[in-house]
Amino acid sequence: MARTLNVKPSSSPQNGCPPDRMKRLEHIGIAVSDLDEAERIFGDILGSPAYKREEVAGEAVLTSFFQAGDSKVELLVPTSPDSAIAKHLEKRGPGLHHIAFHVEDLEAELGRLVDMGYRVVVGPKPGADGKRIAFLHPSDSAKVLVELCADAHS
Amino acid sequence: MARTLNVKPSSSPQNGCPPDRMKRLEHIGIAVSDLDEAERIFGDILGSPAYKREEVAGEAVLTSFFQAGDSKVELLVPTSPDSAIAKHLEKRGPGLHHIAFHVEDLEAELGRLVDMGYRVVVGPKPGADGKRIAFLHPSDSAKVLVELCADAHS
Repeated sequence: MARTLNVKPSSSPQNGCPPDRMKRLEHIGIAVSDLDEAERIFGDILGSPAYKREEVAGEAVLTSFFQAGDSKVELLVPTSPDSAIAKHLEKRGPGLHHIAFHVEDLEAELGRLVDMGYRVVVGPKPGADGKRIAFLHPSDSAKVLVELCADAHS
Repeated sequence: MARTLNVKPSSSPQNGCPPDRMKRLEHIGIAVSDLDEAERIFGDILGSPAYKREEVAGEAVLTSFFQAGDSKVELLVPTSPDSAIAKHLEKRGPGLHHIAFHVEDLEAELGRLVDMGYRVVVGPKPGADGKRIAFLHPSDSAKVLVELCADAHS
């Protein structure tokens, strides 16, 4: 039984980000230890296969992408023991790894958030799937690893 | 430096789910220990406040929803120590909790997946935000807690 309690704004609409620049959930990143098996599983669940694999040498990961409406599921397997994903698998095991929001202007959004006290731990740098990416410090974002990404040509 | 390797289907297009029924990433669920603080953080990041809070008595959680394009971010805080979210917080701490895909026909999709060997651990039952929900066993889905949800009136 669900009950709606209230509408409680957590920040004002005048916080520097007009409505037409609202972020879109671009993808969810999942750390996996066996890419073939995970591709089979998410292919089964989504009813549609991965549309590409892509290696991101700078991150030492091999990725695999599924479309799910306007968003994507990104599977990540490490290609080196030094990869951040290898360290995540060692510490936390496979599972949900990060959440990525699309922004129009990556530098402007990072500047806006840094001005509010958020720290950038990775990037801006090239990422998979034709994007430029940056990650916020998870200690600043409720222990969630948040990626912001923009189209590389923007 | 990103490099596209190949397009590698993980399952055939004839797996019982025609293209027009492709799943949509409906929301990402995040377990939090302080809902006010997490609402402030995601309001800052998304540039837009939560659009509602809703208590789901059957799950012993209070939820808060943000729109992010066609998808949502759902924050979850336990309202009882017996809540699955309370147990998750105790075992894993706050962070990403589950990923939810919208389906048109919940029972049909669950039947399709059960026939393929996937196990349902919760539901179908009423969930937050006007949905009927079910969860797959994470041991079957690469250690990711996967929710399938449909509109309650469908």
